[in-house]
Amino acid sequence: MAYGYIGSMKTQPGKRDDVVAILLSGAESLRDLGCRNYVVSLACDDPDTIVVTEVWDSKEHHDASLRSPEAKEAIATAMPMLTGEFTSRELVVVGGLGA
Amino acid sequence: MAYGYIGSMKTQPGKRDDVVAILLSGAESLRDLGCRNYVVSLACDDPDTIVVTEVWDSKEHHDASLRSPEAKEAIATAMPMLTGEFTSRELVVVGGLGA
Repeated sequence: MAYGYIGSMKTQPGKRDDVVAILLSGAESLRDLGCRNYVVSLACDDPDTIVVTEVWDSKEHHDASLRSPEAKEAIATAMPMLTGEFTSRELVVVGGLGA
Repeated sequence: MAYGYIGSMKTQPGKRDDVVAILLSGAESLRDLGCRNYVVSLACDDPDTIVVTEVWDSKEHHDASLRSPEAKEAIATAMPMLTGEFTSRELVVVGGLGA
């Protein structure tokens, strides 16, 4: 079954939109890496928190995507704009619309 | 911008798959109600927890969908199989693959 991931990250004040732009810039290219969904959102309850919900063909596809040169560069660019407060949740996707 | 929702529910022991089936049965029909994504998943960290990640054209579309006869019937059928432990998070979806 497909692999799901919900991650959140907190950004330094004023940096949220810069980090969102980095996350969105590579989203379409993830399709070729086995990604079905990569949805970038803003938390309603915190002005500095970004939430990403993802569906991948497998956990291996997800993990491999993080090792690409593009991902490493994006992470390196974004990291100084983050506070280091992350949450993550792994899921087994069973189906649904858009899964 | 689009509206996102992440909800989790805990099921009575042995009832998880029955509730998953109810959630999946109506998923495709949600497209006509303004739903872009309705992904049903199992939590990796709890055998009785289901997580649903949703993207809708607007919060109004989401809220209206819960008032349909089909939704009311599904909720009434599922409710006795749930423990009453829910979590929810509302999001402002800014984009991404499948958003």
